[in-house]
Amino acid sequence: MDQLVGSGLEHVCISPGSRSAPLAMAFARHPGVRVWMHLDERSGSFFGLGLAKASGRAVALLCTSGTAAAEFHPAVVEASYSRTPLLVLTADRPPELRGVGANQAIDQDHLYGSAVRWFCDPGPPVAGADSARHWRRLAARALAEAAGTPPGPVHLNLPFQEPLTPEPGAPPSPVAADGAVTVHRSQQPTSAMRRRFAELVASAERPVLVAGEMRDGSRLGAAAIALGIPVLAEPTSQLRLPGTVVAYEALLRTPGWADFHQPDLVLRVGATPTSKPLNHWLAGAGAPTLLVDPDGGWRDPDVLAREVFAADPLPLLEACASRSGGWRPDWQAADAVAGRALAETLAGGPLHEGQAVRALAEALPERATLFVGSSMAVRDVDTFWPAAPPGRLVLGNRGASGIDGLVSTGLGVAAAEQPGPAAILLGDLSLYHDMNGLWAVRRHGLRAAFIVLDNDGGGIFSFLPQAEHEDVFEELFGTPLGLRLEDVARLYGLEFCSVERASDLEGALRGAVLAERATMVAVRFGRADSVSGHRACWAAVAEALSREGAQ
Amino acid sequence: MDQLVGSGLEHVCISPGSRSAPLAMAFARHPGVRVWMHLDERSGSFFGLGLAKASGRAVALLCTSGTAAAEFHPAVVEASYSRTPLLVLTADRPPELRGVGANQAIDQDHLYGSAVRWFCDPGPPVAGADSARHWRRLAARALAEAAGTPPGPVHLNLPFQEPLTPEPGAPPSPVAADGAVTVHRSQQPTSAMRRRFAELVASAERPVLVAGEMRDGSRLGAAAIALGIPVLAEPTSQLRLPGTVVAYEALLRTPGWADFHQPDLVLRVGATPTSKPLNHWLAGAGAPTLLVDPDGGWRDPDVLAREVFAADPLPLLEACASRSGGWRPDWQAADAVAGRALAETLAGGPLHEGQAVRALAEALPERATLFVGSSMAVRDVDTFWPAAPPGRLVLGNRGASGIDGLVSTGLGVAAAEQPGPAAILLGDLSLYHDMNGLWAVRRHGLRAAFIVLDNDGGGIFSFLPQAEHEDVFEELFGTPLGLRLEDVARLYGLEFCSVERASDLEGALRGAVLAERATMVAVRFGRADSVSGHRACWAAVAEALSREGAQ
Repeated sequence: MDQLVGSGLEHVCISPGSRSAPLAMAFARHPGVRVWMHLDERSGSFFGLGLAKASGRAVALLCTSGTAAAEFHPAVVEASYSRTPLLVLTADRPPELRGVGANQAIDQDHLYGSAVRWFCDPGPPVAGADSARHWRRLAARALAEAAGTPPGPVHLNLPFQEPLTPEPGAPPSPVAADGAVTVHRSQQPTSAMRRRFAELVASAERPVLVAGEMRDGSRLGAAAIALGIPVLAEPTSQLRLPGTVVAYEALLRTPGWADFHQPDLVLRVGATPTSKPLNHWLAGAGAPTLLVDPDGGWRDPDVLAREVFAADPLPLLEACASRSGGWRPDWQAADAVAGRALAETLAGGPLHEGQAVRALAEALPERATLFVGSSMAVRDVDTFWPAAPPGRLVLGNRGASGIDGLVSTGLGVAAAEQPGPAAILLGDLSLYHDMNGLWAVRRHGLRAAFIVLDNDGGGIFSFLPQAEHEDVFEELFGTPLGLRLEDVARLYGLEFCSVERASDLEGALRGAVLAERATMVAVRFGRADSVSGHRACWAAVAEALSREGAQ
Repeated sequence: MDQLVGSGLEHVCISPGSRSAPLAMAFARHPGVRVWMHLDERSGSFFGLGLAKASGRAVALLCTSGTAAAEFHPAVVEASYSRTPLLVLTADRPPELRGVGANQAIDQDHLYGSAVRWFCDPGPPVAGADSARHWRRLAARALAEAAGTPPGPVHLNLPFQEPLTPEPGAPPSPVAADGAVTVHRSQQPTSAMRRRFAELVASAERPVLVAGEMRDGSRLGAAAIALGIPVLAEPTSQLRLPGTVVAYEALLRTPGWADFHQPDLVLRVGATPTSKPLNHWLAGAGAPTLLVDPDGGWRDPDVLAREVFAADPLPLLEACASRSGGWRPDWQAADAVAGRALAETLAGGPLHEGQAVRALAEALPERATLFVGSSMAVRDVDTFWPAAPPGRLVLGNRGASGIDGLVSTGLGVAAAEQPGPAAILLGDLSLYHDMNGLWAVRRHGLRAAFIVLDNDGGGIFSFLPQAEHEDVFEELFGTPLGLRLEDVARLYGLEFCSVERASDLEGALRGAVLAERATMVAVRFGRADSVSGHRACWAAVAEALSREGAQ
């Protein structure tokens, strides 16, 4: 209630019912919202529609479960086609009472079909540390989606378990206000939005900019660097430029350093970050997060956003004053320390993904396209890819992060004829899963370098807790492939070579990238070496930071 | 194909099949698109995804019916979440072969659920006068939706009947280019869009601006009038201001006048017009139409739009040069002639909706809100409502145009406390349909004037062809209500009066509008008088135009 009112809700039309009682009572007891009772849900919904049409602002409807919810349907349809904002709240039985003949329980999931701009069923409320933030986000988002382009109805289906009402005289205490969410929406940001954004950035002492996957991120480059704050950019954001912090994954795996460097403001652009240590650090910091998304998305699984800017990030970044000094030098010094430690460790350790990523970055010309597979490949590129001037396009399938279709996506990327050669970096399981896709190499005469991280199976699982279940691990998770990659290459007419020593990597990769025809390079290493090699990297960074007093 | 290529499509990934043969052949024979063959639909779809990711532009996928379409699903999901534009074309069996065990026929309707930005099944192609325009719109719209906010996949399910291929050597001839559609998309229009719009308007000799339902249309007022072209604005557009053409419905019902005044450019803002003569005239003129919609909708059932501006109309109108002279004076002269003829006819004829609308316009103060019911009420307001300075808000349920929920919507409008009193104009059947809604008057102490156009049944049907089927007309369409409205008013505590003579109208309506409590005025007339009264109006306008030589 409190977030709905804070986000601008002024009116609710309620029809009486039992399952909806918790919400009805909360509305009635909140001083910021006016309750309009209606006995007939159909009348109530059209009444709310009229209020919304005349005022131009969303009005809430509330009913109990069952056919009551279907009574709203005609008004929801009119709202959809006349572009009238409405917030439709239907109470529901909890999941365990659905489809089992419970009284007044019908299937309310997507009840209004394509007539609503957004549907959400958040499940029954449970008390938890984050629950206030979850409910505030749900409320703020629902009203923002109703006010979208075009405006229209939004449906929240809200299940409740018994008891439905508190003891008389003992209403629930109000939730904390500190998780309140504000939404600013205008693709071309208004001057008020630019001013607000700039003020928030100016008032922070320890702000960071975090950039996830974006195809067109390089256009933000100059403005992002000019901010004078640490920029933590994934390679797939096209923003890992000179002047950004590259080794953030290693730094944030070092608990002392991470704890000592807590941000007080986070600017988020692009998709949700890939790195688990980075996400963990962001979630733990509890700093206000400004989520900037020109498409008005809510890519914030850890419920950190306090202000959402549904706007082009470039004018927002350009509105900020540059700062010199501050804490960016700390980050850059630590980044340099970590970078040296990683390089030394990779040079001395067993061959694994880390050396392959570094060698590929060396081998690729300044203008080139890299397509990165999911699972380990994208994470190792995040960890080990160096900063470089703009000119390379780094793509992946971070939308749904599947390991399916990666060969074909990479070949499609290669077929788009971006400037320079195309390289495709992926694991052996991913290659196998879309092996059929290699037919396009022969059929369409495509040129691309496949760099296969070949550890004969699913390497990422060796880093996860199931690795300790030795009786079932290899069969269920390791899944060694047992196929010879040279035979795959021969079948589809690719040139082939394999690398088993780090010193051979750069020559092989440079040859593959510059080859006149499609080539496959199998980089062969053991899964155990990968685990120990990565862990040696983190340990070396922690030790170097400690030695240099950087933490 | 031609429109797809014209709208920017460069690549299509095709997997072989029979039902998709017509499209596959057309793609292969069009010089503007590159065909990428893939044997495996899953590989082909991910390949297209990669092409689209690297190029940033939509790529088409094409497959045959059945599980082939389901093979696209993983790539469609990745495209949805990574915001990659894709045009997914699935061939299908025609409707008569669905759900009856035909080979390779599965339910492909909304196959990808919420993962696509837009789904359309246009039905099997049939040759017709408008078919080129229909297919061009479908193609242009599909690519525009894929490039929307956020970009993503669009699914066209395309059924084909046999024969699926032309005779060898006899490919279908190319369609005419004159129905080509261009889409410009930027909510805040770019300078190129403003320039293009202004050039099109400047080069037209007989342009008109047509304004349908818009809540915030009054902000366009000054810019629309300043254009110096005829403005044909529904009252619900908030744009029926002094200087606009009011009697367009009557003018366009006069065939000679309508034929002689054909536009060469139509600017459309707001919802699709209500008036059948207006829509008929627009469809018959065949003039290029510029459809302007800030929400990027396609409210163009007659397929007239040649350029779609998904943009705020205000900066576009402001970019146009004012013109003096031109054909606006012709329209204004005819409008004055028609206005006089209508007034004289109403003064001398039997009581019907026309006099009620005119009297209500007189009775309402300068700041007031009118909620208009559907069916006859909204059409009579369109026909008879005079121009007035901004200050009144005229609303209706034009989203889906139902006659349900009108009492409640009107009371919701009244509850929004806009400046001035609220009036609700609707028919007796609409009142009955949502009679329950009157409970809110008593419960919430609302003030509103209900003006009920009471002809004891469904008046609009008397104007339609079924009126000639006398044996079933009254039972099926006339549906006389047989309820006494004074009893309805008493039940819910409304003041009541009835009017049966035109001379009593204005006093009764003024009293109702200014009353301290909710009031119902029943304006009673026969359905036959309504039909003859309207027809007398059209005849008088035609005669006056002929007499004055205005046509």
